[in-house]
Amino acid sequence: QIRELDSILAELKGLKRGRLNIAVVSTANYFAPQLLAEFCSQYPEIKVSLNVGNRESVLKQLHDNEIDLAILGRPPKGIEVEAHPFMENRIVIIAAGNSPYASESAIPPTRFQDETFIMREQGSGTRIATEEFFAAHHVRIKTGMEMSTNESVKQAVQAGMGLGVLSLDTVMLEVETGRLVVLDVQGFPIIRHWYIVHRESKRLSGVAAAFKKFLISK
Amino acid sequence: QIRELDSILAELKGLKRGRLNIAVVSTANYFAPQLLAEFCSQYPEIKVSLNVGNRESVLKQLHDNEIDLAILGRPPKGIEVEAHPFMENRIVIIAAGNSPYASESAIPPTRFQDETFIMREQGSGTRIATEEFFAAHHVRIKTGMEMSTNESVKQAVQAGMGLGVLSLDTVMLEVETGRLVVLDVQGFPIIRHWYIVHRESKRLSGVAAAFKKFLISK
Repeated sequence: QIRELDSILAELKGLKRGRLNIAVVSTANYFAPQLLAEFCSQYPEIKVSLNVGNRESVLKQLHDNEIDLAILGRPPKGIEVEAHPFMENRIVIIAAGNSPYASESAIPPTRFQDETFIMREQGSGTRIATEEFFAAHHVRIKTGMEMSTNESVKQAVQAGMGLGVLSLDTVMLEVETGRLVVLDVQGFPIIRHWYIVHRESKRLSGVAAAFKKFLISK
Repeated sequence: QIRELDSILAELKGLKRGRLNIAVVSTANYFAPQLLAEFCSQYPEIKVSLNVGNRESVLKQLHDNEIDLAILGRPPKGIEVEAHPFMENRIVIIAAGNSPYASESAIPPTRFQDETFIMREQGSGTRIATEEFFAAHHVRIKTGMEMSTNESVKQAVQAGMGLGVLSLDTVMLEVETGRLVVLDVQGFPIIRHWYIVHRESKRLSGVAAAFKKFLISK
């Protein structure tokens, strides 16, 4: 209740103060801080707390009303939310910069028969999407190392241990510096969206409403 | 018990096969995959599973005997382990590449009076170390955004929202490309070590023992 009062006061003060609590899934970790920074540069007195977790933990925080807003790759089911798409999320296949695949175009998925992929852990959304894609093309891939974070997958792919499937947002710097290369594979990128999400019943603070509007307008 | 049998068989086969389950704290996320890749290139049939978590979750996995080895910044207390230091962990102060501090040398900590720092969440080891350092120098810093991951801190610092305190291992690429700069501050880097840890009572598999030896020999 004190927080709610704080929020109302913040609105009265024209967003000069206030606090924004936001939770994002780990892939959004790579771009959410810049968006927050851009937003905060307009409202420098706002305090921001960004909590990064897996999908399960973000949904729990949303459900428990611990956060104002969440950024997710798929709107949740089973809990009543408002979800607005705001940015493309391109899922790509990556290889080490010196991979022989780097120079090829329109690679058919069948070329990856028996190829080793560095995989996220069992149950990861990216892993499920990857396995479904190759199953649909009747291609059997090999699971190399299993890594529980995007960062580890990137590092292992860079080290030449196999190919990886990741959101383009997580590999920009490595691609720019030639450490990793995005392969031109038929069917890729898989294009999804990022969603800004809050509970349907949530009374958004002025700051949270402004941030939501800022994202959707991008 | 089946896993234990598997491990013994792996040893008999001269490490040609076998499985290595390792958990590391999130900062080690940035270098552990390369070490695993280097190790695995000698034993390509080994299956590796790397689980990245916060300190609490890594300790729980160690305690529950779910992993062979853990990589931590400080050996745990309260559970009987063998812990061997193997690599330096340099804690540094970072700023955006265009920061005016970038060109200064031997900056006294008092220069950071009232400076904004992008902080890890309450309870984070890096945050505690940062607050202790500045308190010891009677310097009051301001807490800007609070971010729950190293990656978010890096991104927010790059976006010019404040300074940050991180392990050098997490910022190599950004420093190399000039996006971030390591400041030359008196008292920094704070030098710690990484530890490879297992339960004292653990019967290490051949693969795990070999990986431990590989790390310590580096």
